[in-house]
Amino acid sequence: MIQYNVAMYVREISEVALIARLAKQIATATSSSTANGSASSKIIVTIGDDTAAWIGSGETELLTTDTVVQGVHFTPETGTWQTVGWKGLTSNLSDIASMGGIPTYAVVSLGLPRDMLVLDVENLYMGLLEAANTYGITIVGGDIVASPVFFMAIAQTGITQQAPMLRSEARPGDQIAVTGLLGGSAAGLAILLGEMTAKEEDPQQLIETHQQPRPRIKEGQILVKAGVTCATDVSDGLLINLGTICASSGHAARVDTTLVPIHPEATKAFPKKALSMALNGGEDYELLFTASPDIMTMLQGRLEHGLHIIGMIMDSTPSQVYLFDGNGEPVELPNTGWDHFRR
Amino acid sequence: MIQYNVAMYVREISEVALIARLAKQIATATSSSTANGSASSKIIVTIGDDTAAWIGSGETELLTTDTVVQGVHFTPETGTWQTVGWKGLTSNLSDIASMGGIPTYAVVSLGLPRDMLVLDVENLYMGLLEAANTYGITIVGGDIVASPVFFMAIAQTGITQQAPMLRSEARPGDQIAVTGLLGGSAAGLAILLGEMTAKEEDPQQLIETHQQPRPRIKEGQILVKAGVTCATDVSDGLLINLGTICASSGHAARVDTTLVPIHPEATKAFPKKALSMALNGGEDYELLFTASPDIMTMLQGRLEHGLHIIGMIMDSTPSQVYLFDGNGEPVELPNTGWDHFRR
Repeated sequence: MIQYNVAMYVREISEVALIARLAKQIATATSSSTANGSASSKIIVTIGDDTAAWIGSGETELLTTDTVVQGVHFTPETGTWQTVGWKGLTSNLSDIASMGGIPTYAVVSLGLPRDMLVLDVENLYMGLLEAANTYGITIVGGDIVASPVFFMAIAQTGITQQAPMLRSEARPGDQIAVTGLLGGSAAGLAILLGEMTAKEEDPQQLIETHQQPRPRIKEGQILVKAGVTCATDVSDGLLINLGTICASSGHAARVDTTLVPIHPEATKAFPKKALSMALNGGEDYELLFTASPDIMTMLQGRLEHGLHIIGMIMDSTPSQVYLFDGNGEPVELPNTGWDHFRR
Repeated sequence: MIQYNVAMYVREISEVALIARLAKQIATATSSSTANGSASSKIIVTIGDDTAAWIGSGETELLTTDTVVQGVHFTPETGTWQTVGWKGLTSNLSDIASMGGIPTYAVVSLGLPRDMLVLDVENLYMGLLEAANTYGITIVGGDIVASPVFFMAIAQTGITQQAPMLRSEARPGDQIAVTGLLGGSAAGLAILLGEMTAKEEDPQQLIETHQQPRPRIKEGQILVKAGVTCATDVSDGLLINLGTICASSGHAARVDTTLVPIHPEATKAFPKKALSMALNGGEDYELLFTASPDIMTMLQGRLEHGLHIIGMIMDSTPSQVYLFDGNGEPVELPNTGWDHFRR
């Protein structure tokens, strides 16, 4: 039986805690059931990683879903309809990338307000189709319903011949690395929101980093083929996503903040905030992974946007992330990653 | 280039017309692209049928998505959270059934208002899991986001060893049949909304028909193995869904309204409205299919909830549905099926 406080509202529980409760409810119900063709016995990954994974008839199948709501995830200030389409699809592709998979097909569910322009729906699809064509996937269906607020839920399939990279596979002694620069998306968002005045002359590069992320699909495949077994993507923020790896793996992480690859344009535009943007900003969609030093050495020079080692997995408790500066002194930073219900 | 009226709003275009525009946009963009591992060349069914279908590594893979929004598809009067969960998943399973497929895995995207009770989310999941266990599928993941209005978008996978049944495969001379009773869901909804006073003493059976539909998964597999090649499910209403078969196949349909299997409880409760409920009500989730008289004869007695022949496919234009009564006299009924944006 699931214990609950009958008076508890969604706003009073963290997203992580709510998902954990539902995952427990699902696990309890599923263990007592018999699935089609032993479907449940073929499952490799269920709730709690970037995608689900199961053994198909010839390869491992991946499935993920990611949703955006107008006013929650974007506003007219932070994205055009075209970039909302691009970003909505590429955030799903990033989940497939973080498992080491090849994305294949997508279905798109749209909730459309009656006073939305048809032209805007077509612009949204222009962005979706640009992303689909850029990354070789096909939109094969969807659903369109009326809704008082615009939302888009995409489900994306993928395949892989290798064992998917998981959040739970970090091992003490592993080095921690990211596939590219961090903080650019948060800096672009800050410029779009006018929350801070960028010192930079041309903010377009940061804005594009926020609006048109590039999922690291090729990199994911290089990693998995090189023997990397633990990865996720930097969607919620480096500290949040690394914290998830620690919690799933049951180990702690030590990060040297001077090694974090801050987007140089973010540093130029927001010199005081750039480190925090890189640690907490999220939506950078770089891959965050752990592997032995041998594998890291082998990977050097093989990733298009670099391989940036930022720390190490430690065999200590609690399973959390510890920050240090270049002199080995602890760094205290508030953890301000994204939580859908509390913020 | 797609032609548009820049001032046209979503409310001014039918759902069918909007989907047709987007499908054209997708087809144009996709034909010029190169998909992963020739993914696009493996597609059997894309936008415009109950599910998408493509050739997997060992069998045909199916993918569909279906979405509900509070206040649009249900209200506190028309369903409990548990039945919203059940119905949300089974409407997806019905799409898999109408292709003749075996449903396998689902991902659930939820948009949750901050003032929703956690208990209600758990009740929703209770309904989802009851349906999942009843029909042997596993919920393997999802996404939870904050939203000013509750919505749920489910993506459901399935497999089949046979060629999927399509809306476009009706042939002149085919008989038209449904797998069970119609109008019960609309009658149950009318009772729940208090729009009409049911004459019946116990409305529970009709209410359950509306709130807890039973997808015809077994029936779909029996049909496809018997050689049926054309099917859909009665989700929007018999006339709408048969109209879609006609439009997709390029033929017309003749229906004898005296042969339509009206739910007997609907007839008892709403004697004057029951035929209209059976023709236009929707959400009955019976399978609607066409096949040669030989195949129909072979299927007699093999379907748990009956095989009700209601008419015939004709080689005439325009591709629409013509209604006749038992004496062969034309019947005029307004087509009042569901359109998300206009009604």
